[in-house]
Amino acid sequence: MTGARTEAALARAAALMPEAIAAWSDFLRVPSISAQPDHAGDCRRAAEWARARLAGFGFSASLMETDGHPVVLATHPGPGGDAPHLLYYGHYDVQPPEPLELWPSPPFTPTIVDGPHGKRMVARGAVDDKGQVAAWLGAFAAWHAASGTMPVRLTVLLEGEEEIGSPHLEPFLAAHSAALAADAAVISDTNLWDFTTPAITTGLRGLLYVEIRARAAARDLHSGLFGGLACNPLNELAALLGALRDDAGRVRLPGFYDGVLVPDAAHKAAWDALGFDGAAFLGKVGLTTPVGEAGRGLLERLWARPTADINGIWGGYAGAGAKTVIPAEAGAKISFRLVPGQNPQAILMAFKKFLTERAHPDLKLTFHELGAAPGIAVATDLPVVAAARRALAEEYGRPPALIGCGASIPVVESFKRVLGLETLLMGFGLDDDQVHSPGEKFEIACFERGLRAHIRLLGHLAAMNR
Amino acid sequence: MTGARTEAALARAAALMPEAIAAWSDFLRVPSISAQPDHAGDCRRAAEWARARLAGFGFSASLMETDGHPVVLATHPGPGGDAPHLLYYGHYDVQPPEPLELWPSPPFTPTIVDGPHGKRMVARGAVDDKGQVAAWLGAFAAWHAASGTMPVRLTVLLEGEEEIGSPHLEPFLAAHSAALAADAAVISDTNLWDFTTPAITTGLRGLLYVEIRARAAARDLHSGLFGGLACNPLNELAALLGALRDDAGRVRLPGFYDGVLVPDAAHKAAWDALGFDGAAFLGKVGLTTPVGEAGRGLLERLWARPTADINGIWGGYAGAGAKTVIPAEAGAKISFRLVPGQNPQAILMAFKKFLTERAHPDLKLTFHELGAAPGIAVATDLPVVAAARRALAEEYGRPPALIGCGASIPVVESFKRVLGLETLLMGFGLDDDQVHSPGEKFEIACFERGLRAHIRLLGHLAAMNR
Repeated sequence: MTGARTEAALARAAALMPEAIAAWSDFLRVPSISAQPDHAGDCRRAAEWARARLAGFGFSASLMETDGHPVVLATHPGPGGDAPHLLYYGHYDVQPPEPLELWPSPPFTPTIVDGPHGKRMVARGAVDDKGQVAAWLGAFAAWHAASGTMPVRLTVLLEGEEEIGSPHLEPFLAAHSAALAADAAVISDTNLWDFTTPAITTGLRGLLYVEIRARAAARDLHSGLFGGLACNPLNELAALLGALRDDAGRVRLPGFYDGVLVPDAAHKAAWDALGFDGAAFLGKVGLTTPVGEAGRGLLERLWARPTADINGIWGGYAGAGAKTVIPAEAGAKISFRLVPGQNPQAILMAFKKFLTERAHPDLKLTFHELGAAPGIAVATDLPVVAAARRALAEEYGRPPALIGCGASIPVVESFKRVLGLETLLMGFGLDDDQVHSPGEKFEIACFERGLRAHIRLLGHLAAMNR
Repeated sequence: MTGARTEAALARAAALMPEAIAAWSDFLRVPSISAQPDHAGDCRRAAEWARARLAGFGFSASLMETDGHPVVLATHPGPGGDAPHLLYYGHYDVQPPEPLELWPSPPFTPTIVDGPHGKRMVARGAVDDKGQVAAWLGAFAAWHAASGTMPVRLTVLLEGEEEIGSPHLEPFLAAHSAALAADAAVISDTNLWDFTTPAITTGLRGLLYVEIRARAAARDLHSGLFGGLACNPLNELAALLGALRDDAGRVRLPGFYDGVLVPDAAHKAAWDALGFDGAAFLGKVGLTTPVGEAGRGLLERLWARPTADINGIWGGYAGAGAKTVIPAEAGAKISFRLVPGQNPQAILMAFKKFLTERAHPDLKLTFHELGAAPGIAVATDLPVVAAARRALAEEYGRPPALIGCGASIPVVESFKRVLGLETLLMGFGLDDDQVHSPGEKFEIACFERGLRAHIRLLGHLAAMNR
């Protein structure tokens, strides 16, 4: 049941929708490319644009300086007291648009075109993350217009360095933990299951990324004069890394699966009900046959099972023709996608031990950790999740899918660790939105439903508290 | 027993030694760097120098044009009739001298300096191969001075492209096979066992060199979004190449060892008697522990056992930091050192079958052969080998070691295949001669003994025929 206050906000949203889309376009026109130093001024302009828009809805909003691009921090007391308190996180920076020649229209000239789902907005940042941020800003605008306030307490954190790895975010969180206090965080930077099926992402895989260097002889050797006696780092590395998985696709590190949470029957049944088409998923990229653990469902392998992938390898001669060299050194980058229950540091130790125990005595291995974050399971019994399930069910006419995501969203782990906050991941993108690629787009219908779903989310959360 | 004619030639050699060393110096002064086009004229000068010197000993000598640097072809009828007939092969070209700053004296200014074995000649080409060629030219000079002729029939083939892979040699051999007819070939481009122990190289390993490309998806994939389902060419390549050898160091290709000739007890005993110091051999290059087949002697592993070595590997991300990519493609270069009895083409087939049978269905493997030559065993019952054993035993006061060589000398295989000729490999270099490196040198004592050994070789071969 939608309350009267929410109905009023939804009615205002309908009237304000052209303004919300125009504001989204204004936001997209700012080339806030965080990776390119000559766009630092544009990043600040985008931050200021968002600050001003939030101030217009009654937020107390300011730009906070960091050692990089500024953070927008804004708060609204809503009804005050012990009303539910959400921390909305988003980012105003975008990926570089290159290669420019592959864009159908200039990346920073937002252009609305027709598509199979109706109109769509084409621009860099159309969806990631300016479009998703503009949707919840539009929800705030509607609540402000309908009620003169917000139905819950709100804090907004908009950063400008997500696309470059958020190098200054964790220090910011730690320094401003009191100002960032809330009951839960909300992030709109994920996808729907499909155009007509909403989704809440309840699991994210973590990551352990390791670079290995393997050295043997003091110099490159001639494979004729030394072959058969001299330790070859390439032979050894292939043997060591080739032994990482068994014939059933399981990772052979001792203890690797210790503590791994297996999805319960309800989760598995829900995933089965999604009717995931593995052949289509792989076929899109030219593949036919899944790898991974025999006996596990395909979505389970993608969302809830850990992996070991070599991401890069090098050593010896890679030029044209033949060179009979036994190189002195070789290297590789290996990453493990982790799931809740696995401890990244324990896996790193097991990995080092697995390789060093098996290494030839002349193989000197060094390990360099390039990232370690655990898998995240979002608790599904939180009030904000319950409110989101109702909001999405009402907006779409069907309950949201509770889905996993094989990749990491590092800020979710930072929120949990630094601020003690759980995060609702409710997003409105589609798989074909061309995120980070030329021609990035966001369906207008997805934007509008997302805006309304955020209105409903705030209304339900407020009502649950009464 | 040295015959009177040989004694006369040795006596003349003693008197002519200063002239032989001066001629060798003249030869070294010509910067006949075959790899550098602006030294093409120098290559021709070196060829002309050798032609003129051979003509001076009564050879009918000429420069033969090729599509590259010219070949010196010379013949001497010796006693004529059915006298033994040797084809001497050498090369007048040298490696580039760079880096010049590491030379103790200019590379094309031959300089005689003191060393632990007495005087030594320092120059590019000092030993490889101008010094070894100058030694046998000095032997011809002595025979000519002592007897006015040669004791056997001689053909000389000096090429100018050995250091760039002899691209025009095989067509030359095929086109002039009649002019190159002989009983056996002689090459001086190998080493002594040590300063006081002569050697005949009786076995050379062959080589099969293969480049592999492994492709899976149509584009690079995100390891978070696809990891656990998508075939990763790096994972697959590591597993496939890591499976090439078993825990005992044996190559696992079916049929790989079929037909491999195992050295007989006499060979093994002779090798054992050499007192090879494996720890010193490996220690020189910073290694401690041999790889290879358990239960095989170290020299056997180097000289008489086949190997599998990865010479290069590439794919994915090799830059700084982390990139979570599952690459579309990876590649590797792999070579097998082969020994007599192994068929390179059969091994190539077995290798392709081994990999393709084990490959994931989405892994598309392509193979590109970059070289295939069988291992070579020099028959030790040839008259020329018997003559060389006597010659070296007399010159050094101890019998020559019959040694192997882990590397290939492709011309030996060409002589066998194109001309039907066996080759005597009798050389006078030392391991520390800095071949192909700055400071290349040849001990004067090695040059002189080599010159005399060639005199004795010709004398014994002539005597054996009577």
